[in-house]
Amino acid sequence: MIFAGIVAGGIGARFGGDIPKQFLILEKKPIIVHTIEKFLLCEKFDSICVGIHKNWKSYTEDIFKKFNLNDERLLVTSGGENRNETIMNIINALESKFEKNDDNVLVTHDVVRPFVTLRIIEENIKTALKYGACDTVVRSHDTVVESNKEKTEILNVPNREFVFLGQTPQSFNMKKLSEFYNELTYEEKSNLTDACKIFVIKGESVKLIEGEFSNMKITTVGDYQIAQSLFARHSEKA
Amino acid sequence: MIFAGIVAGGIGARFGGDIPKQFLILEKKPIIVHTIEKFLLCEKFDSICVGIHKNWKSYTEDIFKKFNLNDERLLVTSGGENRNETIMNIINALESKFEKNDDNVLVTHDVVRPFVTLRIIEENIKTALKYGACDTVVRSHDTVVESNKEKTEILNVPNREFVFLGQTPQSFNMKKLSEFYNELTYEEKSNLTDACKIFVIKGESVKLIEGEFSNMKITTVGDYQIAQSLFARHSEKA
Repeated sequence: MIFAGIVAGGIGARFGGDIPKQFLILEKKPIIVHTIEKFLLCEKFDSICVGIHKNWKSYTEDIFKKFNLNDERLLVTSGGENRNETIMNIINALESKFEKNDDNVLVTHDVVRPFVTLRIIEENIKTALKYGACDTVVRSHDTVVESNKEKTEILNVPNREFVFLGQTPQSFNMKKLSEFYNELTYEEKSNLTDACKIFVIKGESVKLIEGEFSNMKITTVGDYQIAQSLFARHSEKA
Repeated sequence: MIFAGIVAGGIGARFGGDIPKQFLILEKKPIIVHTIEKFLLCEKFDSICVGIHKNWKSYTEDIFKKFNLNDERLLVTSGGENRNETIMNIINALESKFEKNDDNVLVTHDVVRPFVTLRIIEENIKTALKYGACDTVVRSHDTVVESNKEKTEILNVPNREFVFLGQTPQSFNMKKLSEFYNELTYEEKSNLTDACKIFVIKGESVKLIEGEFSNMKITTVGDYQIAQSLFARHSEKA
């Protein structure tokens, strides 16, 4: 079976303000609604499970009612203490409702990337089914620089030809992701903020999928302004 | 003495169209005019030298007349075959006009980053004077991923805490930059597209300066649209 896991466990600490950023309005709808609508468009999903911070779960359910997100494939579960814990809660919620299967695939996606395209989602599904794991990336326009531990000087400038910026979706064979994560020590769990890295350190291949520059993450007030402009431009064209 | 080198040697191949991207209009002025106006604001510069592709040199001089860029500190010289060659042409142009000095500093900047701030420029000058080299960087919102040679799989996911995206200005002790560059082999010259990396491989410290997310590089049509939106938003607020 094919599942989507929408990662929305944060409370928007980086953004400031009283409301997690996924609830901010873009063109008359909260960001979370735009993102979920994109996933509902893809008929391949058996279920789309949103992992949301427990304090915002009932608010989210109200939003879904208000914006007519009443597709029976849509589930809501509580988020965990960090990104990977939220993904594990999503897996548990799905496995308690659907049959476990060695071939199940989970397409994980940041709730604050509403501009994801159906092309990107479908390539993720296909690649995770075939290879077990994939990451959506774009080339970096800017040179990437690694700093020393004090973050005061350049330590290394990796060859730009092989440097990419990770977006989401990140998609995985669900059984492997769950097994690999549970094999990690407490310390490894704290350090591995990126689920793809779990596969990498286990020596498993993670294929690259070409993302889009417009598939941006809305993390700061500046990003939100750019996102509003992007939507405004789309509307002008339509 | 303190110099600025505006790197504008490209012909906009990545952008498409018939005109290098620095001549596209943002809010009634070509991008190049916005960028140069930012540098003219800083009184610490003894000269600001623009390295432009030879086919566009007289066009650039016409643009400067049209937009009243008649500050006598402004020089125009021909660009080279790549970014570093353009910087070397700028250094030659400056050294043929001004006295050579061990302490001269060159603040190099991409012509297509018109949103640079005076704060960033002044921190560059101060840091290059004190330490010999610095790079303007921002944290990466996105996880950075290094691919295998075939660019099909993830090879490494560097620890995000120490990963930054390089912007410009990049600023240098002019004598050292020139000496280090001339010591490189032909092959090293072809591979070292980033001037800071020349200092890094010579074992010289390159300090980090905090940039701004808005100090974006206008490389693609999408970037140009975002830049137009950023300007529109600034105007609304004003």
